[in-house]
Amino acid sequence: MIHRLLLAYRGTAYAGWQRQDNAPTVQAAVEAALAAVVGREVVVHGAGRTDAGVHARGQVAHLDAPAEIPLGALVHAVNQRLPGDIRSLAADRPGEGFHARFSALGKEYRYRVLTAPVADPIDAPFVWRLGRRLDLEALREASAALVGRHDFSALALAGGSHGSGIRRVDRAEWTANGRELTFVIVGEGFLRGLVRRLVGTLVEIGEHRRSPSDLARLLAGASGGDAVAAGPTAPAQGLMLQRVEYPAAFGGALEPW
Amino acid sequence: MIHRLLLAYRGTAYAGWQRQDNAPTVQAAVEAALAAVVGREVVVHGAGRTDAGVHARGQVAHLDAPAEIPLGALVHAVNQRLPGDIRSLAADRPGEGFHARFSALGKEYRYRVLTAPVADPIDAPFVWRLGRRLDLEALREASAALVGRHDFSALALAGGSHGSGIRRVDRAEWTANGRELTFVIVGEGFLRGLVRRLVGTLVEIGEHRRSPSDLARLLAGASGGDAVAAGPTAPAQGLMLQRVEYPAAFGGALEPW
Repeated sequence: MIHRLLLAYRGTAYAGWQRQDNAPTVQAAVEAALAAVVGREVVVHGAGRTDAGVHARGQVAHLDAPAEIPLGALVHAVNQRLPGDIRSLAADRPGEGFHARFSALGKEYRYRVLTAPVADPIDAPFVWRLGRRLDLEALREASAALVGRHDFSALALAGGSHGSGIRRVDRAEWTANGRELTFVIVGEGFLRGLVRRLVGTLVEIGEHRRSPSDLARLLAGASGGDAVAAGPTAPAQGLMLQRVEYPAAFGGALEPW
Repeated sequence: MIHRLLLAYRGTAYAGWQRQDNAPTVQAAVEAALAAVVGREVVVHGAGRTDAGVHARGQVAHLDAPAEIPLGALVHAVNQRLPGDIRSLAADRPGEGFHARFSALGKEYRYRVLTAPVADPIDAPFVWRLGRRLDLEALREASAALVGRHDFSALALAGGSHGSGIRRVDRAEWTANGRELTFVIVGEGFLRGLVRRLVGTLVEIGEHRRSPSDLARLLAGASGGDAVAAGPTAPAQGLMLQRVEYPAAFGGALEPW
């Protein structure tokens, strides 16, 4: 029977979500814990293939497991076997036909930028310590251009996109809390490396090293206009997969217990 | 010349702030880093003697150091020599007569309680994972009784109080964010172990294992009324020294750069 797991992890020690030879990954750690619980090999499918060093509070994965195991016991047993930097926060049975990635309606990512010169040791593993002030109004002005349907190919990692780069973005906002700025982006899906490339480009805008209108031109350029180069890729450690949305027929988003 | 440092630390690996033989402490780590920078032995005095495992975002300490060292260079050099779980976030020169503890007007502590069954690995080191629901209204009703001047002796650690147990509390509030509850308490000073004992008692109230009026009776009992026993001490890892206030003559609170 199809089971759905809500997963949170500190990505620092992992080469990303997706299983690899010769590198520790979150998927491999979750599969090993589940195999020990279920008593046979288990394959899990994640909603988002987070890159090396990226964190998650709201990753969702599905797997096939016997229906006899109560959900509470499954989560408890898996957590007993997972390393301390990965936890399952909830589980349910979303019904036939569910796929963590293909059934997702949308995802929310958050990126934290610290403009202060020193990061406190509590937040340090989860922020990009930029150490320079940013123009919040310029960040907001530029980010507003992201909302809607656009071709994001010009901002994706080379080699990462197959097929259309057109995606719908529902929300792209910056909030400030003291010297920490958080970028929240919600959309139907994101090309590989897109959020970090967006943040790298937006930070150049916030530093007045490029114009807020550059982002709109980048998106237009992808559809055949003038070519504008995207900015650098922001560091992985500031990025968090916050939430994955699903249709009501599959129980909607899986919330932490 | 008197210097003031703002310090943040993850308290997990330390036997508290105060220097001890044969145990790692935050004070000893800060003194060792400063000695390497200044080139002679340095004694630092902290505003709050946080217990083993307690964290800080807003600890303040003072020390005597040569005025020739620019403040930015001092903070940078100290951070280069501190372990990764302690950082100085700012420094200034508050003027003659300043003492981190005796000049303090008040302190803010925060305590985080997670009512969910599993803590995500990002927050886990900084919360008390209670795993049971609490009645927020009961917590708020009981906490309101803390504001004002009271004798807190009945809630302090045995042997920790010398002299009067009377202290002024300016704010005692609970906020909820999903399944995480945060207790914020601001006052002129707190007896040793008081905040954790208060939280332990309040959690029993939030679980309906004692009445909200018990806290008021505990405070009255300390002044000679009926004796009511305080609850258990909440775990150290949920507690954070958030902020220390000082008079405007000493520059007010030291803010992160």
